[in-house]
Amino acid sequence: MSDLHGLLGAAPTSVVTAGVELLAEPLEAQAVRVQRVDWRPPLGGPASAADLTAVLTDPRRAAANATALERVLSAGAELVDVVPASEALALAPGTFLHAGPPIGWDRASGPLRGALIGAMVLEGLADDPEPAQRRLEAGDGITLSPCHHHGAVGPMAGVISPSQWGFVLRDPVHGGTAFCTLNEGLGKVLRYGAYGPEVIERLRWMAAVLGPLLQKAVRRRVEREGPLDIRQIVAQMLQMGDEGHNRNRAGTMMLVRELVPELLDLGAPTSDVADVVRFCNGNDHFFLNLVMPACKLALDAGRDVPGSSLVVAMARNGTDFGIQVSGTGDQWFTGPANTPQGLFLGDYGPDDANPDIGDSAITETGGIGGFAMAAAPAIVRFVGGEAEDALATTRRMYDITLGEHPAYQVPVLGFRGTPTGIDVTAVVRTSILPVINTGMAGRVAGTGQVGAGLVSPPEQCFTQALAALAERART
Amino acid sequence: MSDLHGLLGAAPTSVVTAGVELLAEPLEAQAVRVQRVDWRPPLGGPASAADLTAVLTDPRRAAANATALERVLSAGAELVDVVPASEALALAPGTFLHAGPPIGWDRASGPLRGALIGAMVLEGLADDPEPAQRRLEAGDGITLSPCHHHGAVGPMAGVISPSQWGFVLRDPVHGGTAFCTLNEGLGKVLRYGAYGPEVIERLRWMAAVLGPLLQKAVRRRVEREGPLDIRQIVAQMLQMGDEGHNRNRAGTMMLVRELVPELLDLGAPTSDVADVVRFCNGNDHFFLNLVMPACKLALDAGRDVPGSSLVVAMARNGTDFGIQVSGTGDQWFTGPANTPQGLFLGDYGPDDANPDIGDSAITETGGIGGFAMAAAPAIVRFVGGEAEDALATTRRMYDITLGEHPAYQVPVLGFRGTPTGIDVTAVVRTSILPVINTGMAGRVAGTGQVGAGLVSPPEQCFTQALAALAERART
Repeated sequence: MSDLHGLLGAAPTSVVTAGVELLAEPLEAQAVRVQRVDWRPPLGGPASAADLTAVLTDPRRAAANATALERVLSAGAELVDVVPASEALALAPGTFLHAGPPIGWDRASGPLRGALIGAMVLEGLADDPEPAQRRLEAGDGITLSPCHHHGAVGPMAGVISPSQWGFVLRDPVHGGTAFCTLNEGLGKVLRYGAYGPEVIERLRWMAAVLGPLLQKAVRRRVEREGPLDIRQIVAQMLQMGDEGHNRNRAGTMMLVRELVPELLDLGAPTSDVADVVRFCNGNDHFFLNLVMPACKLALDAGRDVPGSSLVVAMARNGTDFGIQVSGTGDQWFTGPANTPQGLFLGDYGPDDANPDIGDSAITETGGIGGFAMAAAPAIVRFVGGEAEDALATTRRMYDITLGEHPAYQVPVLGFRGTPTGIDVTAVVRTSILPVINTGMAGRVAGTGQVGAGLVSPPEQCFTQALAALAERART
Repeated sequence: MSDLHGLLGAAPTSVVTAGVELLAEPLEAQAVRVQRVDWRPPLGGPASAADLTAVLTDPRRAAANATALERVLSAGAELVDVVPASEALALAPGTFLHAGPPIGWDRASGPLRGALIGAMVLEGLADDPEPAQRRLEAGDGITLSPCHHHGAVGPMAGVISPSQWGFVLRDPVHGGTAFCTLNEGLGKVLRYGAYGPEVIERLRWMAAVLGPLLQKAVRRRVEREGPLDIRQIVAQMLQMGDEGHNRNRAGTMMLVRELVPELLDLGAPTSDVADVVRFCNGNDHFFLNLVMPACKLALDAGRDVPGSSLVVAMARNGTDFGIQVSGTGDQWFTGPANTPQGLFLGDYGPDDANPDIGDSAITETGGIGGFAMAAAPAIVRFVGGEAEDALATTRRMYDITLGEHPAYQVPVLGFRGTPTGIDVTAVVRTSILPVINTGMAGRVAGTGQVGAGLVSPPEQCFTQALAALAERART
């Protein structure tokens, strides 16, 4: 060892190792300072390497990404109304929106099928699950379409049918609008693919009592003080241990805190008001359905900038994972959805989990959720891992993002803005895939939630997107 | 440089430096690895060194500290009632409790005098501030006594008069009871020494509407589901960016969330309920007045264990800082209160700040507040410093505490329990003084709050306490 030191001139020795741990360990055993660099070969092999060159040398790229990112970071998100989906999205009976890229009944996974069956019953298009399933299989008078194609987002199965109520958010900077249903709670709920009588009954109460009371409260609030600034609540929740995807405790409390005084002033029966407050407060994920459309607004603002390699949507339908990119319009780049790794509820285990599902990865696309785990180290109790992993994950995401969010900050990282704006070229170049915090639905239709964990998109979403960007760059 | 390396055998060189930075810097400039150890000479010189030996060799000490600590860590804290101080503490008119160790009008600082003047007016013992002050100066029919002597705690001036309402907490494990007034909010408030008409009017509304409604809500809650577990809310707030002294946002929201359904069920006028909810929600410090008695209960459980060097109270009256220790009964060990360093509101500056005041340092005594800053890095925006300082402060406090709190955990430190149970011998031995997050009151009576910051007790509290412990150990 002292020979080696002599050889190197006796100055404190440092060796940089990339990827190969076999190299680093013996050096370290000899007391050489080793700097591990997390280098892996780029995704996709020679074909992607050529695409990467084409896209990185596209003269439009730098300005296009700057424009797209600026729009994402500056977008506002205000809660302006609460209405049924029929009204917000002009949904006709028999039309069902769903999470992720386009899919038909034939390829749909258990939880998506379960949610569609429940929605058929809810809408009165079938009396029972069995005839509902037969009609969905036959497909007559049934239209399935992605939420993302209608300015909407849906968590997990993401099934939106006309009579479901939801939040309407508006981006006052760019003028966009986004819709998301009201969150039903955890366990046996439609979005996790459950469709039993208690699921339908809860959704009917939400349409009869919860939605209308929230509508009155929100409208009154808009009248008295203007719309509720959701972007600001998201900024605050990151200072309070939430990451906005799998942890929304503080966000939910801040929302309810804003709405309770309005609810009390409506002259509504106090027992209904008490039920509404109990329902919202009893579900720490209630605010997720406001975080998601807030992120949707920001990313929609960043769409359609020619030459931009910024990811504007990541979404899963339970079978396919799809992404959309600013420079390639509404095209989806898909691959088979992975199955999350994490912690399970009760007796459930890995075999019970459906592959990744839901539009909720819009939160990571917008720089929060898994990307802001460092703000919410307690999340590891829900998705698995150690507190240190939460910090490491956020730090790693800076390598694949174009900027830092000015409003969404992580106190423990010295108030650094969250890593925001996934760059397709950075993902391919570094082989670092986005990390998504997510709930896990049961594989079998009707089960409900089985756990929560972490998941990443399949690589081909990014190599395909890169190929499409390269094709446009070359022409 | 290479000569030095040769001299030391060319192995990677490390030097441990203690205290003297002059030694460390040139070594580091020569690329020697320097390990700085934060060593300082013990407090108090030779006299304390002899006391330290006496106390450290006291055969009772290890078991006594284990007993005292176990009591502190296992204490519960349940909200059981809301009542006026006259009822909870059997306070007679003309009796005023105050924060910190005993003090008379003659040595009282501006904010304590201001609060006493306001309390005289509130109680109808004077019509105006001037005659109130004259009566307090004369002292006829006036009794001042520390809150801590009555099983109570008060933030800042901590003045408690008979008609003020407050929370009653109970420790179901050891049977103790503690009282703390309802928090008035920030700015021009009695506890910061303000006594203008708006202060008195607010206190009258609190006694007429807020207190009675909270009483009904809490009693109903106790009847329906049992007492509200404050220890559990404190545990949760530490996972949500609060440290429980200067940041109580999540705690306040969790409290209100629990009480709103009860408030809605009382049949009270909705406008009163709305006012109560707005008042509580509009003051992020509302929950401080529950954290304080929760910590008081825990530390009271640790009192009076012969031979124990565990600190059971740190409290300031605006002139003196005092501590009490488990092994020395009700004796106070005092020194002149320091003035906090921090951030100021509006145009206020360091000259406007009164020395340290309030019983709220019971939170640090109980292992939270400044000791749990790592759980609340965003607090540095309120008290000054960088996020990294918050983590470093908590880490340093482990050096002067006897244990880690099993329920109060810091996610970012891998869910490590907060440093709990200050050991007088550890403070003297290491010269590390407890760090307290605190509000700053204006020096001049009537001013109110001028800022927030960090402060430590004067050394002599600990050297005196050590001397008293040593005396008992020797006899």
